[in-house]
Amino acid sequence: MKYAVLGTGMVGNTIGKRLVSLGHEVKMGSRSADNPKAAAFVAEAGKGASQGTFADAAAHADVIFNCTAGGGSLAALEAAGADNLAGKILIDVSNPLDFSRGFPPSLSVCNTDSLGEQLQRAFPALRVVKALNTVNCLLMVEPARVPGDHVTFVAGNDAAAKAQVQELLREFGWRSILDLGDITMARGLEAYLLLWIRLYGALGTADFNVSLTRAAAAAH
Amino acid sequence: MKYAVLGTGMVGNTIGKRLVSLGHEVKMGSRSADNPKAAAFVAEAGKGASQGTFADAAAHADVIFNCTAGGGSLAALEAAGADNLAGKILIDVSNPLDFSRGFPPSLSVCNTDSLGEQLQRAFPALRVVKALNTVNCLLMVEPARVPGDHVTFVAGNDAAAKAQVQELLREFGWRSILDLGDITMARGLEAYLLLWIRLYGALGTADFNVSLTRAAAAAH
Repeated sequence: MKYAVLGTGMVGNTIGKRLVSLGHEVKMGSRSADNPKAAAFVAEAGKGASQGTFADAAAHADVIFNCTAGGGSLAALEAAGADNLAGKILIDVSNPLDFSRGFPPSLSVCNTDSLGEQLQRAFPALRVVKALNTVNCLLMVEPARVPGDHVTFVAGNDAAAKAQVQELLREFGWRSILDLGDITMARGLEAYLLLWIRLYGALGTADFNVSLTRAAAAAH
Repeated sequence: MKYAVLGTGMVGNTIGKRLVSLGHEVKMGSRSADNPKAAAFVAEAGKGASQGTFADAAAHADVIFNCTAGGGSLAALEAAGADNLAGKILIDVSNPLDFSRGFPPSLSVCNTDSLGEQLQRAFPALRVVKALNTVNCLLMVEPARVPGDHVTFVAGNDAAAKAQVQELLREFGWRSILDLGDITMARGLEAYLLLWIRLYGALGTADFNVSLTRAAAAAH
């Protein structure tokens, strides 16, 4: 499978390397074709890795990971170009974190809208699946770092796209994947970051996740 | 211990009965001294239960539960009266749910503020502790309904108040209680409702909660 990873930060780097290690082709996209962080990724990841502009990466790929900072995601997709995005799956792992007031961040969109919905509205032919945004990037691609049956989520309007994303999540090692529904469910997944940030502070590690437990009677 | 329960809905009724069953005195407060739902609570809960206005209930109590709907919480506390609230602990289990757009609800305040903070700002001499708002009311008072080491949270500015609330949570049966910090942490706890509502839909039951798991190395 051919993947694009938009964004050269730690999230894109981590996801890109994991995809290459699983035997996938990965083109890392950024604003320029010769981005030095993307070049470092290509050198480290080895065979299967390449770099280019956002448009190069999107044109190359069957499936696109949005690993840009939430505040830059719309601009990155605009640079990628609607024609290069049409019909493709976008796995949106980003969060609309707003650090303008310092730490902890707030969200630049939430409650009655979400970044996932904004991306879907801006590119109707893109098949947006919100996923993995509720854990740190190391856990995204290696859930076994944390023991037990902890959970990850998918949300999006396209059932076939969600099924394909779940397949990839299982490749990453996820065993407990909950489909929350359509892309409006991104509101809950992104708003959870307001709690995640505080749990991170209280637990003193980003290597954590939640498991869901329910009453035995309700499980049947 | 003398408790006030502000609100006559299912949350107030459930918490009030549990407190009475544990041997506490409980006065349920509402807008009128002769509220029929409060009268039904008193009849059902038996010895130790009484009713009155918001002001009667607050004046009677050492510890006050805010079980009003989020949209009515400030008005209920205003009716209770700042003098009757001063120095007392308010356990705020409410959520600022806004059903004006239908279901699922949005929040009437979130992200850079929270209902917990609004109550604390409006009544500076009140010792607000946000607690229990992340589970349904049956679980609030009987966490053993759901198996395993699932978690509840406290947040507030007053350490002694939080310690006393944690003591009560242990009386209810909670074993895993995480202190997230000051009352601004209510932002994360209330925003989680946007996810909770969607988990409720996906799981088909309100009888669920989350456990926290972290990497073994990080636990040391």
